[in-house]
Amino acid sequence: MAYFRDNIARMSGYTPGFQPKQTNIVKLNTNENPYPPSPAVLEAVAATPADALRRYPEPMGESFANTAAGVLSVKPEWILPTNGGDDLLNICVRAFCDASRPVAFAEPTYSLYPVLAAIQDCPVIAVDRAAPDAMEQLANAKAALTIVCNPNAPTCELTPIEAVAALAKRLAGKGVVLIDEAYVDYAEDNALRLVERFDNVIVLRSMSKGYSLAGMRFGFGVACPPLIEGLAKVRDSYPVDAVALRAASAAIADQAYFKSNIEKIKSERTRLTAALRAMGLSVPDSQTNFVLARCMTKPAEAVYKALSEAGIFVRYFKLPQLEDKLRITVGTPEQNDRLLATLKAILTKDR
Amino acid sequence: MAYFRDNIARMSGYTPGFQPKQTNIVKLNTNENPYPPSPAVLEAVAATPADALRRYPEPMGESFANTAAGVLSVKPEWILPTNGGDDLLNICVRAFCDASRPVAFAEPTYSLYPVLAAIQDCPVIAVDRAAPDAMEQLANAKAALTIVCNPNAPTCELTPIEAVAALAKRLAGKGVVLIDEAYVDYAEDNALRLVERFDNVIVLRSMSKGYSLAGMRFGFGVACPPLIEGLAKVRDSYPVDAVALRAASAAIADQAYFKSNIEKIKSERTRLTAALRAMGLSVPDSQTNFVLARCMTKPAEAVYKALSEAGIFVRYFKLPQLEDKLRITVGTPEQNDRLLATLKAILTKDR
Repeated sequence: MAYFRDNIARMSGYTPGFQPKQTNIVKLNTNENPYPPSPAVLEAVAATPADALRRYPEPMGESFANTAAGVLSVKPEWILPTNGGDDLLNICVRAFCDASRPVAFAEPTYSLYPVLAAIQDCPVIAVDRAAPDAMEQLANAKAALTIVCNPNAPTCELTPIEAVAALAKRLAGKGVVLIDEAYVDYAEDNALRLVERFDNVIVLRSMSKGYSLAGMRFGFGVACPPLIEGLAKVRDSYPVDAVALRAASAAIADQAYFKSNIEKIKSERTRLTAALRAMGLSVPDSQTNFVLARCMTKPAEAVYKALSEAGIFVRYFKLPQLEDKLRITVGTPEQNDRLLATLKAILTKDR
Repeated sequence: MAYFRDNIARMSGYTPGFQPKQTNIVKLNTNENPYPPSPAVLEAVAATPADALRRYPEPMGESFANTAAGVLSVKPEWILPTNGGDDLLNICVRAFCDASRPVAFAEPTYSLYPVLAAIQDCPVIAVDRAAPDAMEQLANAKAALTIVCNPNAPTCELTPIEAVAALAKRLAGKGVVLIDEAYVDYAEDNALRLVERFDNVIVLRSMSKGYSLAGMRFGFGVACPPLIEGLAKVRDSYPVDAVALRAASAAIADQAYFKSNIEKIKSERTRLTAALRAMGLSVPDSQTNFVLARCMTKPAEAVYKALSEAGIFVRYFKLPQLEDKLRITVGTPEQNDRLLATLKAILTKDR
């Protein structure tokens, strides 16, 4: 359509994971938490007063920032709540990148990054994450914005925090390092403390995965105040709604529930990984709430389709380095059992 | 800070209206609805199931689009839900404007428009809305995006719909006309049917004002499918959360409550306008849920400050054509009475 900018007319939008309408299915395709949020979240949502709906919400989400600051041991003014982690990615691309200011990242990674670059019409420097010097290439690129998804989606591994710190140090004064920690709640380490060491580091967190709030759209950035203040100019005036603020505050306050939820999923991750390996799939250790399993005996796309037909939804990417693999969210023990039994039947059929 | 794009570093962010923390005040500064949303909304929010929080929401907000389509007599695929009306403004500026594609509007108007242009680093063509040929100037500007705030904030008047249609016709094939109808629920007419006549018209609606959902962040665009599909590429993948979808659907479904709420406010608007005029202020008829009152005997800024000190919050803009005026949201009869009594005391003191 002639009315749009050329880059918008040319580009394809992001494709969200399929949201099936049926019940009695097993949904392991969008990395949702299989367990509900803390009961305190449901109480906070249900108790929302009419006045909180009627009036504009806090522009800077102070109530959440205050609670999160205590949990994370940072000051509230270092926290910027956003409408999901995606909103922060979007804000960063718009704040730092344009035609002469590229964004850089190592692929394969979260497929939204190139979409955001296409919208902003900024150059993309994509390095191959399989290359032994991938981090060196990112440092040499000196991009205005370098995004490190850590742990990475969909490859599950954690780049050592000191390697990320070395990248930030190399880029100091030259460009910003945005560490996308959407999955960090399931990892052994995190980069939060780097925001105190480097004035060019932003840590992205999401409440979608570890806190079971994908439906609520709540993420946040942590960075030094000069970065937060600049990003705040690019945000919407009221990016997070009053109910989301209540839900996210209640969720992050209930650390006991959160930790127990995470441990259950990590334990199932270990079991699922071992069971898939025992079936002959190649599955690297995961630091996230999903595994990336390489199908060795049948084409991954055919296995994906057969699983879908059986009501088991996983994610398949027809992309370089990914087209022979399935991304499988760690579900409840019962969901994982159904996946494993169905997968076994598919893999052993017609052999 | 050196990391930001020059345009971002240079610009000032949007200043949201002041949100006082005290109780026992009268808050008439951000055009919120003084009445709560429909009881059906509170029930829908309170009944949110845990699974709706845990899972990603509908990417295109189909449940709301289906309900709204029935109320507005359009097809669901002509509706694009967004994170408040501001999100749609933002999406449009990013979809249509860049360094060689300006945005145009008549000033004074909603002060967010130039902020969005500054973020996008696109030229602004601002015509004087007091000029008799303002619409003609907008047509001649042939901007990639022309925003018509109708009824206009903060000047309260409605541009006749046929004048907007004439503008759209003049710009057909050249640029998009975005009709910002955030306040249209309080007006005598609206431009919704223009989306069927013109492939370059987008109508913006907000649930914040007429439906008492400012805290919920929910707006939507109505336009022909080729426009909706292009805008959907620029949106976040999941712009509206599951609770906001439930709340907005329940709100728009309860038209009886909505209409009665609007009538109460329009009736108070008539009374408030007459009372302010009787006090010597110059107050044009309003088609919105606020009035713009010109102070004839004392400086508006001093009156604004005196009102604030008395716990009565209205909005003051130190801007051309506005610095001698106060923007006053229509409140409940009790709130309006307190405003009028306090204002009378301020205006008659030391005379």
